[in-house]
Amino acid sequence: MKRIVLGVQYDGMPWHGWQTQPAGHTVQDTLEAAMKRFALTEIATTCAGRTDAGVHALEQVVHFDTELEREMFSWVRGVNAFLPSSIAVRWACEVPYQHDDEFHARFSATSRTYHYVVYNHPVRSPLLAGKAGWVFRPLDVESMRAAAQYLLGTHDFSAFRAAECQAKSPVKTMHDIRIERRGDIIVFTLTASAFLHHMVRNIVGALIVVGNGNQAPQWLNEILVGRDRSRAAPTFMPDGLYLARISYDAKWRLPQESVNPLPWA
Amino acid sequence: MKRIVLGVQYDGMPWHGWQTQPAGHTVQDTLEAAMKRFALTEIATTCAGRTDAGVHALEQVVHFDTELEREMFSWVRGVNAFLPSSIAVRWACEVPYQHDDEFHARFSATSRTYHYVVYNHPVRSPLLAGKAGWVFRPLDVESMRAAAQYLLGTHDFSAFRAAECQAKSPVKTMHDIRIERRGDIIVFTLTASAFLHHMVRNIVGALIVVGNGNQAPQWLNEILVGRDRSRAAPTFMPDGLYLARISYDAKWRLPQESVNPLPWA
Repeated sequence: MKRIVLGVQYDGMPWHGWQTQPAGHTVQDTLEAAMKRFALTEIATTCAGRTDAGVHALEQVVHFDTELEREMFSWVRGVNAFLPSSIAVRWACEVPYQHDDEFHARFSATSRTYHYVVYNHPVRSPLLAGKAGWVFRPLDVESMRAAAQYLLGTHDFSAFRAAECQAKSPVKTMHDIRIERRGDIIVFTLTASAFLHHMVRNIVGALIVVGNGNQAPQWLNEILVGRDRSRAAPTFMPDGLYLARISYDAKWRLPQESVNPLPWA
Repeated sequence: MKRIVLGVQYDGMPWHGWQTQPAGHTVQDTLEAAMKRFALTEIATTCAGRTDAGVHALEQVVHFDTELEREMFSWVRGVNAFLPSSIAVRWACEVPYQHDDEFHARFSATSRTYHYVVYNHPVRSPLLAGKAGWVFRPLDVESMRAAAQYLLGTHDFSAFRAAECQAKSPVKTMHDIRIERRGDIIVFTLTASAFLHHMVRNIVGALIVVGNGNQAPQWLNEILVGRDRSRAAPTFMPDGLYLARISYDAKWRLPQESVNPLPWA
Protein backbone atom coordinates (compact mmCIF):
# COMPACT_ATOMS: atom_id res chain seq x y z
CA MET A 1 0.00 0.00 0.00
CA LYS A 2 1.29 3.47 -0.78
CA ARG A 3 0.05 7.00 -0.06
CA ILE A 4 -0.16 9.38 -3.03
CA VAL A 5 -0.65 13.14 -2.82
CA LEU A 6 -2.29 15.27 -5.53
CA GLY A 7 -2.31 19.02 -6.17
CA VAL A 8 -5.80 19.83 -7.45
CA GLN A 9 -6.94 23.11 -9.01
CA TYR A 10 -10.60 23.99 -9.55
CA ASP A 11 -13.02 26.73 -10.49
CA GLY A 12 -15.59 26.54 -7.68
CA MET A 13 -18.37 28.31 -9.57
CA PRO A 14 -20.11 25.23 -11.04
CA TRP A 15 -19.78 23.06 -7.89
CA HIS A 16 -21.55 22.64 -4.57
CA GLY A 17 -18.27 22.90 -2.70
CA TRP A 18 -15.55 20.30 -2.11
CA GLN A 19 -17.14 17.73 0.15
CA THR A 20 -19.05 14.73 -1.17
CA GLN A 21 -22.85 14.96 -0.83
CA PRO A 22 -25.66 12.46 -1.43
CA ALA A 23 -26.90 14.61 -4.34
CA GLY A 24 -23.39 14.72 -5.83
CA HIS A 25 -22.24 17.69 -7.90
CA THR A 26 -19.26 18.41 -5.65
CA VAL A 27 -15.55 18.58 -6.52
CA GLN A 28 -14.76 15.50 -4.42
CA ASP A 29 -17.52 13.42 -6.06
CA THR A 30 -16.32 14.44 -9.52
CA LEU A 31 -12.63 13.82 -8.75
CA GLU A 32 -13.31 10.41 -7.21
CA ALA A 33 -15.51 9.41 -10.18
CA ALA A 34 -12.68 10.37 -12.59
CA MET A 35 -10.14 8.45 -10.48
CA LYS A 36 -12.40 5.40 -10.56
CA ARG A 37 -12.66 5.56 -14.35
CA PHE A 38 -8.88 5.82 -14.59
CA ALA A 39 -7.99 3.26 -11.90
CA LEU A 40 -10.99 0.92 -12.37
CA THR A 41 -11.44 0.76 -8.60
CA GLU A 42 -12.99 2.93 -5.88
CA ILE A 43 -10.56 5.43 -4.35
CA ALA A 44 -11.41 7.53 -1.28
CA THR A 45 -9.67 10.91 -1.01
CA THR A 46 -8.91 13.17 1.96
CA CYS A 47 -8.38 16.89 1.38
CA ALA A 48 -6.46 19.54 3.30
CA GLY A 49 -9.34 21.99 3.62
CA ARG A 50 -12.96 21.78 2.48
CA THR A 51 -14.14 24.69 0.35
CA ASP A 52 -17.70 26.03 0.11
CA ALA A 53 -19.86 26.36 -2.99
CA GLY A 54 -18.39 28.89 -5.43
CA VAL A 55 -14.96 28.96 -3.75
CA HIS A 56 -11.94 28.23 -5.97
CA ALA A 57 -8.73 26.33 -5.26
CA LEU A 58 -5.43 27.23 -6.84
CA GLU A 59 -3.90 24.22 -5.11
CA GLN A 60 -6.04 21.98 -2.96
CA VAL A 61 -3.95 19.12 -1.51
CA VAL A 62 -5.47 15.63 -1.48
CA HIS A 63 -4.16 12.22 -0.40
CA PHE A 64 -5.29 8.66 -1.00
CA ASP A 65 -4.00 5.12 -0.49
CA THR A 66 -3.69 2.56 -3.25
CA GLU A 67 -1.96 -0.69 -4.15
CA LEU A 68 -1.98 0.15 -7.86
CA GLU A 69 1.33 0.59 -9.68
CA ARG A 70 1.14 3.64 -11.92
CA GLU A 71 3.61 6.27 -13.07
CA MET A 72 3.03 9.53 -11.16
CA PHE A 73 2.41 11.49 -14.39
CA SER A 74 -0.43 9.15 -15.30
CA TRP A 75 -2.25 10.15 -12.10
CA VAL A 76 -2.16 13.63 -13.68
CA ARG A 77 -2.82 13.01 -17.38
CA GLY A 78 -4.97 9.91 -16.89
CA VAL A 79 -7.33 11.39 -14.29
CA ASN A 80 -7.54 14.74 -16.12
CA ALA A 81 -8.83 12.94 -19.21
CA PHE A 82 -11.99 12.11 -17.20
CA LEU A 83 -12.39 15.49 -15.47
CA PRO A 84 -14.42 18.46 -16.73
CA SER A 85 -12.60 21.67 -17.70
CA SER A 86 -13.31 23.24 -14.28
CA ILE A 87 -11.18 20.68 -12.34
CA ALA A 88 -7.63 19.43 -12.96
CA VAL A 89 -4.96 17.42 -11.16
CA ARG A 90 -1.82 19.56 -11.45
CA TRP A 91 0.76 17.17 -9.90
CA ALA A 92 1.05 13.82 -8.13
CA CYS A 93 3.75 12.39 -5.86
CA GLU A 94 4.20 9.45 -3.52
CA VAL A 95 4.97 10.22 0.12
CA PRO A 96 7.24 7.80 1.99
CA TYR A 97 5.40 5.59 4.44
CA GLN A 98 6.90 6.37 7.85
CA HIS A 99 5.85 4.49 10.97
CA ASP A 100 4.31 6.86 13.55
CA ASP A 101 4.79 9.82 11.19
CA GLU A 102 2.44 9.41 8.28
CA PHE A 103 1.64 12.25 5.83
CA HIS A 104 -1.97 13.41 6.08
CA ALA A 105 -3.30 16.17 3.78
CA ARG A 106 -5.17 17.81 6.65
CA PHE A 107 -3.34 16.93 9.86
CA SER A 108 0.19 17.41 8.47
CA ALA A 109 -0.63 20.95 7.27
CA THR A 110 1.21 23.66 9.20
CA SER A 111 -0.68 26.68 7.80
CA ARG A 112 -3.19 27.69 5.13
CA THR A 113 -3.21 30.69 2.78
CA TYR A 114 -6.28 32.14 1.07
CA HIS A 115 -6.62 35.00 -1.43
CA TYR A 116 -9.69 37.16 -1.72
CA VAL A 117 -9.82 39.16 -4.97
CA VAL A 118 -11.96 42.31 -5.11
CA TYR A 119 -12.78 44.27 -8.26
CA ASN A 120 -13.13 47.87 -7.08
CA HIS A 121 -14.81 49.85 -9.86
CA PRO A 122 -18.12 51.72 -10.28
CA VAL A 123 -19.29 49.22 -12.94
CA ARG A 124 -19.10 45.41 -12.64
CA SER A 125 -16.87 43.42 -15.00
CA PRO A 126 -18.39 40.39 -16.82
CA LEU A 127 -14.93 38.93 -17.38
CA LEU A 128 -14.42 38.77 -13.59
CA ALA A 129 -17.88 37.40 -12.78
CA GLY A 130 -17.47 34.48 -10.37
CA LYS A 131 -13.72 35.18 -10.14
CA ALA A 132 -13.70 38.34 -7.98
CA GLY A 133 -15.96 40.04 -5.48
CA TRP A 134 -17.26 43.43 -6.69
CA VAL A 135 -17.18 46.61 -4.59
CA PHE A 136 -18.35 49.75 -6.41
CA ARG A 137 -17.48 52.25 -3.69
CA PRO A 138 -13.78 53.29 -3.59
CA LEU A 139 -11.79 51.36 -0.99
CA ASP A 140 -8.90 52.82 1.00
CA VAL A 141 -6.15 50.22 1.23
CA GLU A 142 -4.24 52.01 4.03
CA SER A 143 -7.15 52.00 6.46
CA MET A 144 -7.85 48.31 5.70
CA ARG A 145 -4.18 47.50 6.40
CA ALA A 146 -4.40 49.35 9.71
CA ALA A 147 -7.54 47.41 10.63
CA ALA A 148 -5.96 44.06 9.66
CA GLN A 149 -3.17 44.56 12.21
CA TYR A 150 -5.63 43.88 15.05
CA LEU A 151 -6.18 40.36 13.76
CA LEU A 152 -2.54 39.25 13.72
CA GLY A 153 -1.47 36.74 16.37
CA THR A 154 -3.47 34.20 18.38
CA HIS A 155 -7.10 35.15 19.06
CA ASP A 156 -10.57 33.76 19.64
CA PHE A 157 -12.08 34.39 16.17
CA SER A 158 -15.72 33.65 17.17
CA ALA A 159 -16.80 37.02 15.73
CA PHE A 160 -15.87 35.73 12.24
CA ARG A 161 -17.19 32.17 12.63
CA ALA A 162 -20.24 30.76 10.82
CA ALA A 163 -22.99 29.28 12.98
CA GLU A 164 -22.47 25.88 11.28
CA CYS A 165 -18.72 25.81 11.98
CA GLN A 166 -17.58 22.42 13.32
CA ALA A 167 -14.10 23.40 14.52
CA LYS A 168 -13.31 22.26 18.08
CA SER A 169 -11.85 25.63 19.07
CA PRO A 170 -12.38 29.19 17.81
CA VAL A 171 -8.79 30.06 18.76
CA LYS A 172 -6.52 30.32 15.72
CA THR A 173 -3.23 32.06 14.93
CA MET A 174 -3.22 34.63 12.11
CA HIS A 175 0.32 34.78 10.73
CA ASP A 176 -0.08 37.40 8.03
CA ILE A 177 -2.62 39.59 6.22
CA ARG A 178 -1.41 41.35 3.07
CA ILE A 179 -3.57 43.79 1.07
CA GLU A 180 -2.30 44.85 -2.35
CA ARG A 181 -3.90 47.04 -5.01
CA ARG A 182 -3.01 47.00 -8.69
CA GLY A 183 -5.29 49.22 -10.74
CA ASP A 184 -8.91 48.27 -10.03
CA ILE A 185 -7.99 44.94 -8.39
CA ILE A 186 -7.36 44.50 -4.65
CA VAL A 187 -5.99 41.16 -3.44
CA PHE A 188 -6.27 40.21 0.26
CA THR A 189 -3.89 37.38 1.25
CA LEU A 190 -4.47 35.75 4.67
CA THR A 191 -2.25 33.08 6.21
CA ALA A 192 -3.27 31.34 9.46
CA SER A 193 -2.72 28.10 11.36
CA ALA A 194 -6.25 27.18 10.28
CA PHE A 195 -9.48 28.98 9.43
CA LEU A 196 -12.98 28.69 10.88
CA HIS A 197 -15.96 28.24 8.54
CA HIS A 198 -16.57 31.50 6.56
CA MET A 199 -13.70 33.16 8.46
CA VAL A 200 -11.97 34.68 5.38
CA ARG A 201 -15.21 35.97 3.86
CA ASN A 202 -16.30 37.42 7.22
CA ILE A 203 -12.95 39.14 7.78
CA VAL A 204 -12.88 40.56 4.23
CA GLY A 205 -16.47 41.78 4.66
CA ALA A 206 -15.44 43.63 7.84
CA LEU A 207 -12.30 45.09 6.25
CA ILE A 208 -14.43 46.45 3.39
CA VAL A 209 -16.69 48.26 5.88
CA VAL A 210 -13.49 50.01 7.06
CA GLY A 211 -12.16 50.51 3.51
CA ASN A 212 -15.27 52.33 2.35
CA GLY A 213 -15.15 54.65 5.38
CA ASN A 214 -18.18 53.35 7.28
CA GLN A 215 -16.06 52.32 10.29
CA ALA A 216 -12.64 53.29 11.65
CA PRO A 217 -9.83 50.68 11.71
CA GLN A 218 -10.24 50.20 15.50
CA TRP A 219 -13.76 48.83 14.86
CA LEU A 220 -12.11 45.56 13.78
CA ASN A 221 -10.58 45.22 17.23
CA GLU A 222 -13.95 45.86 18.90
CA ILE A 223 -15.55 43.16 16.75
CA LEU A 224 -12.74 40.68 17.46
CA VAL A 225 -12.78 41.28 21.22
CA GLY A 226 -16.60 41.22 21.34
CA ARG A 227 -16.59 37.64 19.92
CA ASP A 228 -20.17 38.21 18.72
CA ARG A 229 -20.84 37.20 15.10
CA SER A 230 -24.07 39.23 15.04
CA ARG A 231 -22.18 42.52 15.49
CA ALA A 232 -19.83 41.97 12.54
CA ALA A 233 -20.35 42.57 8.81
CA PRO A 234 -22.33 40.13 6.61
CA THR A 235 -20.49 37.19 5.02
CA PHE A 236 -18.95 38.45 1.77
CA MET A 237 -19.78 36.69 -1.54
CA PRO A 238 -17.74 33.52 -2.37
CA ASP A 239 -16.80 34.67 -5.91
CA GLY A 240 -13.37 36.12 -5.11
CA LEU A 241 -12.17 33.47 -2.64
CA TYR A 242 -9.27 31.18 -3.56
CA LEU A 243 -7.71 28.46 -1.40
CA ALA A 244 -4.16 29.35 -2.42
CA ARG A 245 -1.68 27.19 -0.56
CA ILE A 246 -1.43 24.59 2.20
CA SER A 247 1.99 24.56 3.85
CA TYR A 248 3.76 21.37 4.96
CA ASP A 249 7.13 20.45 6.40
CA ALA A 250 9.76 20.42 3.64
CA LYS A 251 10.62 16.80 4.47
CA TRP A 252 7.56 15.65 2.50
CA ARG A 253 9.07 17.10 -0.69
CA LEU A 254 5.71 17.95 -2.27
CA PRO A 255 6.10 19.55 -5.75
CA GLN A 256 3.84 22.46 -4.78
CA GLU A 257 3.29 25.31 -7.23
CA SER A 258 3.09 29.04 -6.68
CA VAL A 259 -0.08 30.07 -8.48
CA ASN A 260 -1.43 33.59 -8.87
CA PRO A 261 -5.22 34.02 -8.69
CA LEU A 262 -5.06 36.32 -11.73
CA PRO A 263 -2.17 34.88 -13.68
CA TRP A 264 -1.06 37.83 -15.82
CA ALA A 265 1.38 38.94 -13.08
CA MET B 1 -33.51 61.95 -32.23
CA LYS B 2 -30.08 61.37 -30.80
CA ARG B 3 -27.39 58.77 -31.30
CA ILE B 4 -25.98 57.11 -28.19
CA VAL B 5 -22.85 54.98 -28.04
CA LEU B 6 -22.22 52.23 -25.47
CA GLY B 7 -19.05 50.38 -24.42
CA VAL B 8 -20.11 46.78 -23.75
CA GLN B 9 -18.02 44.08 -22.08
CA TYR B 10 -18.94 40.39 -22.17
CA ASP B 11 -17.75 36.89 -21.41
CA GLY B 12 -18.47 35.07 -24.68
CA MET B 13 -18.49 31.57 -23.19
CA PRO B 14 -22.25 31.27 -22.46
CA TRP B 15 -23.38 32.95 -25.71
CA HIS B 16 -23.88 32.00 -29.35
CA GLY B 17 -21.86 35.00 -30.51
CA TRP B 18 -22.87 38.64 -30.85
CA GLN B 19 -25.35 38.71 -33.66
CA THR B 20 -29.09 38.26 -33.12
CA GLN B 21 -30.47 34.86 -34.18
CA PRO B 22 -34.00 33.47 -34.45
CA ALA B 23 -33.20 31.01 -31.62
CA GLY B 24 -31.90 33.85 -29.45
CA HIS B 25 -29.19 33.26 -26.85
CA THR B 26 -26.83 35.83 -28.35
CA VAL B 27 -25.25 38.89 -26.74
CA GLN B 28 -27.19 41.26 -29.02
CA ASP B 29 -30.55 39.60 -28.22
CA THR B 30 -29.81 39.76 -24.49
CA LEU B 31 -28.60 43.38 -24.58
CA GLU B 32 -31.60 44.55 -26.63
CA ALA B 33 -34.01 42.70 -24.28
CA ALA B 34 -32.42 44.45 -21.27
CA MET B 35 -32.58 47.83 -23.04
CA LYS B 36 -36.26 47.25 -23.79
CA ARG B 37 -36.97 46.47 -20.12
CA PHE B 38 -35.16 49.65 -19.11
CA ALA B 39 -36.50 51.95 -21.85
CA LEU B 40 -39.94 50.31 -22.27
CA THR B 41 -39.53 50.48 -26.06
CA GLU B 42 -37.77 48.43 -28.75
CA ILE B 43 -34.22 49.61 -29.46
CA ALA B 44 -32.13 48.29 -32.36
CA THR B 45 -28.35 48.28 -31.87
CA THR B 46 -25.44 48.29 -34.32
CA CYS B 47 -22.06 46.96 -33.22
CA ALA B 48 -18.53 47.66 -34.39
CA GLY B 49 -17.56 44.04 -34.99
CA ARG B 50 -19.52 40.82 -34.60
CA THR B 51 -17.90 38.17 -32.43
CA ASP B 52 -18.31 34.39 -32.74
CA ALA B 53 -19.57 31.95 -30.11
CA GLY B 54 -17.17 31.78 -27.14
CA VAL B 55 -15.31 34.98 -28.10
CA HIS B 56 -15.09 37.69 -25.42
CA ALA B 57 -15.23 41.48 -25.70
CA LEU B 58 -13.31 43.78 -23.39
CA GLU B 59 -14.95 46.74 -25.13
CA GLN B 60 -17.42 46.14 -27.91
CA VAL B 61 -18.76 49.47 -29.25
CA VAL B 62 -22.48 49.73 -30.00
CA HIS B 63 -24.68 52.60 -31.19
CA PHE B 64 -28.43 53.18 -31.26
CA ASP B 65 -30.87 56.00 -31.93
CA THR B 66 -33.52 57.13 -29.48
CA GLU B 67 -35.82 60.02 -28.65
CA LEU B 68 -35.83 59.15 -24.95
CA GLU B 69 -34.37 61.64 -22.47
CA ARG B 70 -32.22 59.77 -19.96
CA GLU B 71 -29.07 60.61 -18.02
CA MET B 72 -26.09 58.85 -19.60
CA PHE B 73 -25.26 56.99 -16.35
CA SER B 74 -28.72 55.45 -16.32
CA TRP B 75 -28.01 53.79 -19.68
CA VAL B 76 -25.21 52.07 -17.72
CA ARG B 77 -26.78 51.33 -14.31
CA GLY B 78 -30.33 50.92 -15.60
CA VAL B 79 -29.53 48.49 -18.41
CA ASN B 80 -27.04 46.53 -16.27
CA ALA B 81 -29.79 45.84 -13.75
CA PHE B 82 -31.49 43.71 -16.43
CA LEU B 83 -28.35 42.00 -17.79
CA PRO B 84 -26.86 38.68 -16.61
CA SER B 85 -23.45 38.70 -14.92
CA SER B 86 -21.71 37.76 -18.21
CA ILE B 87 -22.65 41.07 -19.98
CA ALA B 88 -22.34 44.70 -18.82
CA VAL B 89 -22.60 48.18 -20.27
CA ARG B 90 -19.40 49.91 -19.13
CA TRP B 91 -20.09 53.46 -20.38
CA ALA B 92 -22.55 55.49 -22.44
CA CYS B 93 -22.20 58.80 -24.30
CA GLU B 94 -24.11 60.83 -26.83
CA VAL B 95 -22.38 61.62 -30.13
CA PRO B 96 -23.17 64.95 -31.77
CA TYR B 97 -25.40 64.63 -34.80
CA GLN B 98 -23.41 66.00 -37.72
CA HIS B 99 -24.91 66.30 -41.17
CA ASP B 100 -22.95 64.21 -43.71
CA ASP B 101 -20.61 63.00 -40.96
CA GLU B 102 -22.57 60.77 -38.65
CA PHE B 103 -20.91 58.47 -36.10
CA HIS B 104 -21.42 54.79 -36.92
CA ALA B 105 -20.02 52.06 -34.60
CA ARG B 106 -18.83 50.01 -37.57
CA PHE B 107 -18.16 52.43 -40.43
CA SER B 108 -16.48 55.14 -38.32
CA ALA B 109 -13.97 52.63 -36.90
CA THR B 110 -10.42 53.22 -38.10
CA SER B 111 -8.86 50.02 -36.73
CA ARG B 112 -9.57 47.01 -34.52
CA THR B 113 -7.40 45.33 -31.89
CA TYR B 114 -7.79 41.75 -30.67
CA HIS B 115 -5.93 39.84 -27.96
CA TYR B 116 -5.41 36.10 -28.03
CA VAL B 117 -4.34 34.67 -24.65
CA VAL B 118 -2.53 31.31 -24.55
CA TYR B 119 -1.78 29.30 -21.41
CA ASN B 120 1.47 27.48 -22.20
CA HIS B 121 1.93 24.75 -19.59
CA PRO B 122 2.06 20.93 -19.59
CA VAL B 123 -1.17 20.73 -17.54
CA ARG B 124 -4.38 22.68 -18.25
CA SER B 125 -5.63 25.29 -15.76
CA PRO B 126 -9.30 25.12 -14.65
CA LEU B 127 -9.21 28.77 -13.61
CA LEU B 128 -8.37 29.75 -17.22
CA ALA B 129 -10.93 27.43 -18.85
CA GLY B 130 -12.84 29.42 -21.47
CA LYS B 131 -10.56 32.44 -20.87
CA ALA B 132 -7.34 31.25 -22.58
CA GLY B 133 -6.33 28.78 -25.26
CA TRP B 134 -4.15 25.95 -23.94
CA VAL B 135 -0.90 24.81 -25.58
CA PHE B 136 0.99 22.12 -23.65
CA ARG B 137 4.12 22.05 -25.83
CA PRO B 138 6.64 24.84 -25.09
CA LEU B 139 6.32 27.81 -27.45
CA ASP B 140 9.25 29.92 -28.64
CA VAL B 141 8.19 33.57 -28.64
CA GLU B 142 11.14 34.77 -30.76
CA SER B 143 10.33 32.51 -33.71
CA MET B 144 6.65 33.49 -33.54
CA ARG B 145 7.67 37.17 -33.58
CA ALA B 146 9.85 36.55 -36.63
CA ALA B 147 6.95 34.78 -38.38
CA ALA B 148 4.51 37.59 -37.54
CA GLN B 149 6.66 40.14 -39.38
CA TYR B 150 5.56 38.65 -42.73
CA LEU B 151 1.96 39.61 -42.00
CA LEU B 152 2.56 43.33 -41.37
CA GLY B 153 1.35 45.73 -44.06
CA THR B 154 -1.36 45.39 -46.71
CA HIS B 155 -1.97 41.84 -47.97
CA ASP B 156 -4.58 39.51 -49.38
CA PHE B 157 -5.35 37.47 -46.23
CA SER B 158 -7.38 34.72 -48.02
CA ALA B 159 -5.18 32.04 -46.43
CA PHE B 160 -6.58 33.02 -43.02
CA ARG B 161 -10.21 33.54 -44.07
CA ALA B 162 -13.13 31.30 -43.07
CA ALA B 163 -15.21 29.82 -45.91
CA GLU B 164 -18.31 31.64 -44.60
CA CYS B 165 -16.60 35.06 -44.53
CA GLN B 166 -18.84 37.79 -45.99
CA ALA B 167 -16.23 40.56 -46.35
CA LYS B 168 -16.17 42.21 -49.78
CA SER B 169 -12.39 42.05 -50.06
CA PRO B 170 -9.75 39.80 -48.49
CA VAL B 171 -7.25 42.68 -48.62
CA LYS B 172 -6.62 44.17 -45.16
CA THR B 173 -3.82 46.17 -43.54
CA MET B 174 -2.12 44.64 -40.50
CA HIS B 175 -0.71 47.52 -38.43
CA ASP B 176 0.89 45.63 -35.57
CA ILE B 177 1.35 42.17 -34.04
CA ARG B 178 2.82 42.01 -30.54
CA ILE B 179 3.62 38.77 -28.73
CA GLU B 180 4.44 38.98 -25.01
CA ARG B 181 5.14 36.23 -22.50
CA ARG B 182 4.78 36.57 -18.72
CA GLY B 183 5.32 33.30 -16.93
CA ASP B 184 3.07 30.65 -18.45
CA ILE B 185 0.87 33.19 -20.26
CA ILE B 186 1.48 34.41 -23.83
CA VAL B 187 -0.63 37.29 -25.14
CA PHE B 188 -0.86 37.94 -28.90
CA THR B 189 -2.11 41.46 -29.74
CA LEU B 190 -3.13 42.11 -33.36
CA THR B 191 -4.21 45.49 -34.75
CA ALA B 192 -5.55 45.80 -38.32
CA SER B 193 -7.79 48.01 -40.45
CA ALA B 194 -10.34 45.18 -40.21
CA PHE B 195 -10.32 41.41 -39.80
CA LEU B 196 -11.82 38.64 -41.95
CA HIS B 197 -13.95 35.95 -40.32
CA HIS B 198 -11.74 33.67 -38.13
CA MET B 199 -8.66 35.66 -39.19
CA VAL B 200 -7.18 36.10 -35.69
CA ARG B 201 -7.75 32.47 -34.69
CA ASN B 202 -6.29 31.25 -38.00
CA ILE B 203 -3.21 33.49 -37.68
CA VAL B 204 -2.63 32.46 -34.04
CA GLY B 205 -3.03 28.79 -35.04
CA ALA B 206 -0.33 29.23 -37.70
CA LEU B 207 2.00 31.13 -35.33
CA ILE B 208 1.72 28.27 -32.82
CA VAL B 209 2.83 25.77 -35.49
CA VAL B 210 5.97 27.93 -35.80
CA GLY B 211 6.30 28.43 -32.03
CA ASN B 212 6.33 24.70 -31.27
CA GLY B 213 9.00 24.13 -33.92
CA ASN B 214 6.92 22.29 -36.53
CA GLN B 215 7.53 25.00 -39.14
CA ALA B 216 10.13 27.73 -39.68
CA PRO B 217 9.05 31.39 -39.49
CA GLN B 218 9.19 31.73 -43.32
CA TRP B 219 6.35 29.20 -43.55
CA LEU B 220 3.98 32.01 -42.58
CA ASN B 221 5.02 33.93 -45.67
CA GLU B 222 4.44 30.86 -47.89
CA ILE B 223 0.96 30.44 -46.42
CA LEU B 224 0.15 34.14 -46.86
CA VAL B 225 1.37 34.29 -50.48
CA GLY B 226 -0.31 30.97 -51.34
CA ARG B 227 -3.71 32.45 -50.41
CA ASP B 228 -4.99 28.89 -49.86
CA ARG B 229 -6.89 28.32 -46.60
CA SER B 230 -6.50 24.54 -46.94
CA ARG B 231 -2.70 24.76 -46.62
CA ALA B 232 -2.75 26.72 -43.34
CA ALA B 233 -3.19 25.51 -39.74
CA PRO B 234 -6.63 24.65 -38.29
CA THR B 235 -8.73 27.40 -36.72
CA PHE B 236 -7.60 27.77 -33.11
CA MET B 237 -10.14 27.45 -30.26
CA PRO B 238 -12.21 30.60 -29.44
CA ASP B 239 -11.51 30.48 -25.67
CA GLY B 240 -8.58 32.92 -25.60
CA LEU B 241 -9.92 35.49 -28.07
CA TYR B 242 -10.86 38.99 -26.86
CA LEU B 243 -12.14 41.87 -28.98
CA ALA B 244 -10.03 44.47 -27.17
CA ARG B 245 -10.47 47.86 -28.76
CA ILE B 246 -12.12 49.62 -31.68
CA SER B 247 -10.34 52.85 -32.63
CA TYR B 248 -12.15 56.01 -33.72
CA ASP B 249 -11.22 59.60 -34.55
CA ALA B 250 -10.65 61.56 -31.35
CA LYS B 251 -13.28 64.10 -32.43
CA TRP B 252 -16.01 61.71 -31.26
CA ARG B 253 -14.72 61.96 -27.66
CA LEU B 254 -15.75 58.43 -26.70
CA PRO B 255 -14.85 57.60 -23.05
CA GLN B 256 -13.08 54.41 -24.11
CA GLU B 257 -11.31 52.30 -21.49
CA SER B 258 -8.02 50.47 -21.65
CA VAL B 259 -8.82 46.98 -20.40
CA ASN B 260 -6.38 44.14 -19.86
CA PRO B 261 -7.62 40.64 -20.73
CA LEU B 262 -6.12 39.35 -17.45
CA PRO B 263 -6.49 42.34 -15.17
CA TRP B 264 -3.83 41.69 -12.52
CA ALA B 265 -1.26 43.63 -14.56
